Amino acid sequence: MSAAPITGISGGPQSAVLNQDMVPRVASFCPMLFAQKKEKKLSFETIAQALGRDEVAVAALFYGQARASDEDVANLSKILDIPESTLKATEIQACPDRGKTMLELPPKEPLIYRLFEIVQNYGYAYKAVLNEKFGDGIMSAITFSTKVEKETDEKGDWVKITLRGKW
Amino acid sequence: MSAAPITGISGGPQSAVLNQDMVPRVASFCPMLFAQKKEKKLSFETIAQALGRDEVAVAALFYGQARASDEDVANLSKILDIPESTLKATEIQACPDRGKTMLELPPKEPLIYRLFEIVQNYGYAYKAVLNEKFGDGIMSAITFSTKVEKETDEKGDWVKITLRGKW
Amino acid sequence: MSAAPITGISGGPQSAVLNQDMVPRVASFCPMLFAQKKEKKLSFETIAQALGRDEVAVAALFYGQARASDEDVANLSKILDIPESTLKATEIQACPDRGKTMLELPPKEPLIYRLFEIVQNYGYAYKAVLNEKFGDGIMSAITFSTKVEKETDEKGDWVKITLRGKW
Amino acid sequence: MSAAPITGISGGPQSAVLNQDMVPRVASFCPMLFAQKKEKKLSFETIAQALGRDEVAVAALFYGQARASDEDVANLSKILDIPESTLKATEIQACPDRGKTMLELPPKEPLIYRLFEIVQNYGYAYKAVLNEKFGDGIMSAITFSTKVEKETDEKGDWVKITLRGKW
Amino acid sequence: MSAAPITGISGGPQSAVLNQDMVPRVASFCPMLFAQKKEKKLSFETIAQALGRDEVAVAALFYGQARASDEDVANLSKILDIPESTLKATEIQACPDRGKTMLELPPKEPLIYRLFEIVQNYGYAYKAVLNEKFGDGIMSAITFSTKVEKETDEKGDWVKITLRGKW
Amino acid sequence: MSAAPITGISGGPQSAVLNQDMVPRVASFCPMLFAQKKEKKLSFETIAQALGRDEVAVAALFYGQARASDEDVANLSKILDIPESTLKATEIQACPDRGKTMLELPPKEPLIYRLFEIVQNYGYAYKAVLNEKFGDGIMSAITFSTKVEKETDEKGDWVKITLRGKW
Amino acid sequence: MSAAPITGISGGPQSAVLNQDMVPRVASFCPMLFAQKKEKKLSFETIAQALGRDEVAVAALFYGQARASDEDVANLSKILDIPESTLKATEIQACPDRGKTMLELPPKEPLIYRLFEIVQNYGYAYKAVLNEKFGDGIMSAITFSTKVEKETDEKGDWVKITLRGKW
Amino acid sequence: MSAAPITGISGGPQSAVLNQDMVPRVASFCPMLFAQKKEKKLSFETIAQALGRDEVAVAALFYGQARASDEDVANLSKILDIPESTLKATEIQACPDRGKTMLELPPKEPLIYRLFEIVQNYGYAYKAVLNEKFGDGIMSAITFSTKVEKETDEKGDWVKITLRGKW
Amino acid sequence: MSAAPITGISGGPQSAVLNQDMVPRVASFCPMLFAQKKEKKLSFETIAQALGRDEVAVAALFYGQARASDEDVANLSKILDIPESTLKATEIQACPDRGKTMLELPPKEPLIYRLFEIVQNYGYAYKAVLNEKFGDGIMSAITFSTKVEKETDEKGDWVKITLRGKW
Amino acid sequence: MSAAPITGISGGPQSAVLNQDMVPRVASFCPMLFAQKKEKKLSFETIAQALGRDEVAVAALFYGQARASDEDVANLSKILDIPESTLKATEIQACPDRGKTMLELPPKEPLIYRLFEIVQNYGYAYKAVLNEKFGDGIMSAITFSTKVEKETDEKGDWVKITLRGKW
Repeated sequence: MSAAPITGISGGPQSAVLNQDMVPRVASFCPMLFAQKKEKKLSFETIAQALGRDEVAVAALFYGQARASDEDVANLSKILDIPESTLKATEIQACPDRGKTMLELPPKEPLIYRLFEIVQNYGYAYKAVLNEKFGDGIMSAITFSTKVEKETDEKGDWVKITLRGKW
Repeated sequence: MSAAPITGISGGPQSAVLNQDMVPRVASFCPMLFAQKKEKKLSFETIAQALGRDEVAVAALFYGQARASDEDVANLSKILDIPESTLKATEIQACPDRGKTMLELPPKEPLIYRLFEIVQNYGYAYKAVLNEKFGDGIMSAITFSTKVEKETDEKGDWVKITLRGKW
Repeated sequence: MSAAPITGISGGPQSAVLNQDMVPRVASFCPMLFAQKKEKKLSFETIAQALGRDEVAVAALFYGQARASDEDVANLSKILDIPESTLKATEIQACPDRGKTMLELPPKEPLIYRLFEIVQNYGYAYKAVLNEKFGDGIMSAITFSTKVEKETDEKGDWVKITLRGKW
Repeated sequence: MSAAPITGISGGPQSAVLNQDMVPRVASFCPMLFAQKKEKKLSFETIAQALGRDEVAVAALFYGQARASDEDVANLSKILDIPESTLKATEIQACPDRGKTMLELPPKEPLIYRLFEIVQNYGYAYKAVLNEKFGDGIMSAITFSTKVEKETDEKGDWVKITLRGKW
Repeated sequence: MSAAPITGISGGPQSAVLNQDMVPRVASFCPMLFAQKKEKKLSFETIAQALGRDEVAVAALFYGQARASDEDVANLSKILDIPESTLKATEIQACPDRGKTMLELPPKEPLIYRLFEIVQNYGYAYKAVLNEKFGDGIMSAITFSTKVEKETDEKGDWVKITLRGKW
Repeated sequence: MSAAPITGISGGPQSAVLNQDMVPRVASFCPMLFAQKKEKKLSFETIAQALGRDEVAVAALFYGQARASDEDVANLSKILDIPESTLKATEIQACPDRGKTMLELPPKEPLIYRLFEIVQNYGYAYKAVLNEKFGDGIMSAITFSTKVEKETDEKGDWVKITLRGKW
Repeated sequence: MSAAPITGISGGPQSAVLNQDMVPRVASFCPMLFAQKKEKKLSFETIAQALGRDEVAVAALFYGQARASDEDVANLSKILDIPESTLKATEIQACPDRGKTMLELPPKEPLIYRLFEIVQNYGYAYKAVLNEKFGDGIMSAITFSTKVEKETDEKGDWVKITLRGKW
Repeated sequence: MSAAPITGISGGPQSAVLNQDMVPRVASFCPMLFAQKKEKKLSFETIAQALGRDEVAVAALFYGQARASDEDVANLSKILDIPESTLKATEIQACPDRGKTMLELPPKEPLIYRLFEIVQNYGYAYKAVLNEKFGDGIMSAITFSTKVEKETDEKGDWVKITLRGKW
Repeated sequence: MSAAPITGISGGPQSAVLNQDMVPRVASFCPMLFAQKKEKKLSFETIAQALGRDEVAVAALFYGQARASDEDVANLSKILDIPESTLKATEIQACPDRGKTMLELPPKEPLIYRLFEIVQNYGYAYKAVLNEKFGDGIMSAITFSTKVEKETDEKGDWVKITLRGKW
Repeated sequence: MSAAPITGISGGPQSAVLNQDMVPRVASFCPMLFAQKKEKKLSFETIAQALGRDEVAVAALFYGQARASDEDVANLSKILDIPESTLKATEIQACPDRGKTMLELPPKEPLIYRLFEIVQNYGYAYKAVLNEKFGDGIMSAITFSTKVEKETDEKGDWVKITLRGKW
């Protein structure tokens, strides 16, 4: 018995979706951004280059978890073909009401669950190492940047996520 | 009004503790490892060098979230001054019953909460970028390595955490 | 006293339903697939044969828990009589935002609860046997296939479910 | 950067453990069985052969999730070197108070979580296929047998779990 | 002080309601059945007689917790004055997605809470007596019938509920 | 493939157990009653006859969910061979602090879960029928009696549970 | 620093509101009653006098937690200026599906939380006193009346709530 | 069929118990007070008279939910035959860490649940009436007194609970 | 690696938003107030000055957590350019149904979580100090005022929040 | 009717207690500190003066929520009469495993609940005002100080709590 996997895993690029149950929870400009991104067939990589920001930061902006600077708005307007005034009339530059994308925790989405599982299983190990390296304190999740890279070796593809936060 | 901060934040190295309420939940060898580490005044950095493994992996082992190889046992025995037979009589080489360190989620511990908050707020942004880079699938939280580095610039100290998992 | 059972149990084939409270949570193409399946009076068995995939994988696709390949889209288009372009305009080929079908856990649905109960009661027994057979690690729930078979003997019908996952 | 994985994954057989936080919850004979199994260096495979039962059923018995027949007691007595009278004085033949091994759901243990995730993500797909094959009804989780097999091909090891329940 | 009771308790027959917050959760034919039952001023007792089934089974059908046989559909069509084809176009004969009526447990509805309280307080007493009478096993909640009777003596009215399930 | 069922189901009488994790939660006389019942090899049926009460009521008393009258104490003393004064020194005649046997709801114990599932799935059906038969009000779970009977026909054994409560 | 209180506390009578998030959960006649009460500028005190019932009972009726008798309907029709037939077409005389007003417990509403806190903190004290006064049993929350009075002394206003239930 | 009720309901006075699972949660003087109360065969009514306080307040003190004044300590010492110095060495005069008696909410104890149910079902009715009588604000649950009375009429016994709180 | 922070932190004033998922939960006048505030480009500081109330109190009013006096209505009407009659037709002067802004606790919004974390970590420290300073009792959260100030020193900006409540 | 309040509210100073159920959760030095504080009859005010730190910070240290500097240890040793070496052998200078004092949230303790209620009801009001004053960002709960003051006017005592955190 060797049925094909149930999931349609493939190596090709996949356009990210905004599931319809998230629409009423996120800021009202989010569906518009996703729609134009799909229309223009743009990846976050391309948009990130146009904005001069990291991909994850741009995706966070699309999900309403970050705010746009004036420069971001100008660049988004150009690449997504949405008038600047339309963007500015939304809350895209307001302080986000964060934490709305994820309805429940632990997350049911398998990919996001894996990130959560790392915190669950190694949280105290990180704390121990951080306290020994830095003393008492915390790493900021706000003054914080992150990036995602793809590495390939003979075993296949590897995800490399880097988190960098102010102590 | 400028009272000193309520937390005893300091930059000096701090020995990690195993809070007493965790003792009945983790494997029975954990308190022994922490006791000898304290007795010998060893940091995870020193132990990690002796074992040739990453600090977070070693801390995970101390919290019962990873298992020791024969070589790890031999090295731990030497550096912690615990007879190899004593270590081998415990479940240090058994498959861990993982997930016992964290009683509840969201975690109340502020440092660990910050890591959790990153997943909560940027989980979908990571998923979007990963799916666009790798296609459908997940990043393994098991075939997975991680490290913590300290970077210092004019703004102060920065924590840099790297996660690397098989796609 | 020997009233007939309250449930309308019968051995005949029953067309699967998409309960209306699930519609706003799953991807927007799901109701369309179910509607055409009903219209065409097709079973998952028939569709699975047309797609050359397992029945459970096809049902998972209908519930938005898996993505369709180009070939799947072509076959679905033919058998369900939906234009390919209509299917391609939906998120049927996007990476699914998985985990939306089941609102709460433990599941209230009795049939699904029985599967859940197996994990609840025998989870540690499976772990013990798997660790003894394979060493430390996990079985993938992603690189994973599954099938359902019906067996009949003198005691009646038996369900045989096979799960096969990469270690 | 290519650090070794944080988990001590290995292909060799690993003796299953009874984590100490489970001891007060399971029946009082469970720790005794595990202790003798360790002392005698027996795998569940060996014990299962001696009892003429499936490995998972035997592991379930060790975790107090199943009851022993007179014959099981006689065989356990012999292979574990525990007097029959000692075993019979415990509740090993009583009807188990099931459901005590798993403190919380979703389970935090990664291997058990993967089984849970299969139910979570494909639960409705199973229900749909089962209803179409069998009509309305449920699969029994009680008149139920299960087995675990190991398959190896060029891609590595595969876990094959079979569940068989009365409809 | 002897104010009248806050609840409008009365002994007269009361037509059962489908609270509007339940409508989006149950199958779409449920509101139609309730509406015609009200229009026709029928009690469950009358409908049950027409269908030759128990009252609770019929009420379960109205709440979408059971499926109708062809004969049930014919009888419902006649007594409720709904064309058979209209009924057949709904999911009234599909396998129900059970468990949707009760949003949360413990139930807040006082009458249903009392039934729940019986399970909560006497659950282990039932298990003990059942295990002593039948050995290990369970009582089926699926191959199961139930009825409600009214008994009156000098102390007032008594509810008698009988549950009968296959062991 | 037709492995024996994982559960040790048998038709013979099984002595009920008081799982050790329940001991610290129930009244302190409960373990003493269970111990003497086991020592004397008594079933609840026998004890119930000696007390002139129903089996479920007696089991409820053993689990600390009901209180004993003076007559009950005298009878228990005789049949269990415990001095009356020993029983009277406990809280066996005090008003029970009910609800301690079941730690969590939904119950994980499969047999008790089935009772719970009946309330979950048919709760509103019962309410509808009761309201139509009795008007507004509730069935008492306190002025309440219950019994368990065993019926056997060609299909096997059937459990018949009767609940009778004051309206 | 002595800023005015953040809450707009005042001693004057305040018309009660039906928050819009409660509308979809309560019976459909509730918004109509509140609207006419507002239109007619009536207090619950006035309506209660017209109905010859207690204020709390009337408010409970407006929130769909109690049912109206024929006499109540006649009186409500007159005082609220709603035709009797309009009222009778609603479920105002049906048995309420109680427990819908309060979405979650503990309640977030501060005034209701205070009542809840009394039960939380003094629940066992009430039970102890009641058991000593009445023996084993419960106080009915159904055959139950309640009233609210206002008392004023030199320290200010006092709320006096009386609960009276059948033992 | 008219079996005696499962609960041992009786009208005679019942001494209140401190269930053993509450002991580790309440203040350490509580078990001592209950033990002496039992030894001396005192009811809360008698103790309340000796202290010149209300019964519920005294019971609350026994459960560690209120603190004793110097006068209370002197009176308790006399009536319970405990040296004043022994009482003063405990935390009986400290500010209580309130809220420890009730482990979970909703409460499972049926008598306490009935009080809770009143708040759940009539909470908004109370709020509406209170706001109309007093304006915006809350009733204090701290500057608060309460008493329990027994009333008997031809229908049987009635519990009358009065709550009186500062607005 | 020194990517810009993911959050768009800036020191400039940001207009507060009413996230769309809050609209159905708060009072119906809230969106109108926010819309006019945006239209008029007013800050809470400006509006607070016009109303002669504290900024937090005014923001609480905008979120439906406080009620407006006649004077507040007059002032709001003027500064927001909404007719007084329009405001008075809403529930802006009714007693608020408080506690609707925050759907879940712990709050996911990072800024609000920080306030919550202070209560979580220092709650008992506050209680200890308050009890030592004031004796037994509580601080009112109702007869309560609060203000927010900005302080700047060489280390940057500091938030100073003052809470003042009646004991 | 004007019974004395149930709570033993008084204006005199009350020594803070460490409830016994908290002992196994907090660091092991906490009970020792509380015991000596009681023995020496010291208030937090006195100890705070001796340590030159704020009272709340000192109380936080006693509850294991903050760490002691070398100077703190020296001062504590002197004022509590505990040898410095004894203190240093504990984890009083380790990085605390914070968040252990409060078992559940919302907190049941009424005084702490009031602080929690402020965050619950005014959380969004604070966020709105802070974002308008400071832009996007958060207030640190770590680089944070706090103090408690008592103010008295003709209306009675007032609590003034000041929170000051880095933006």
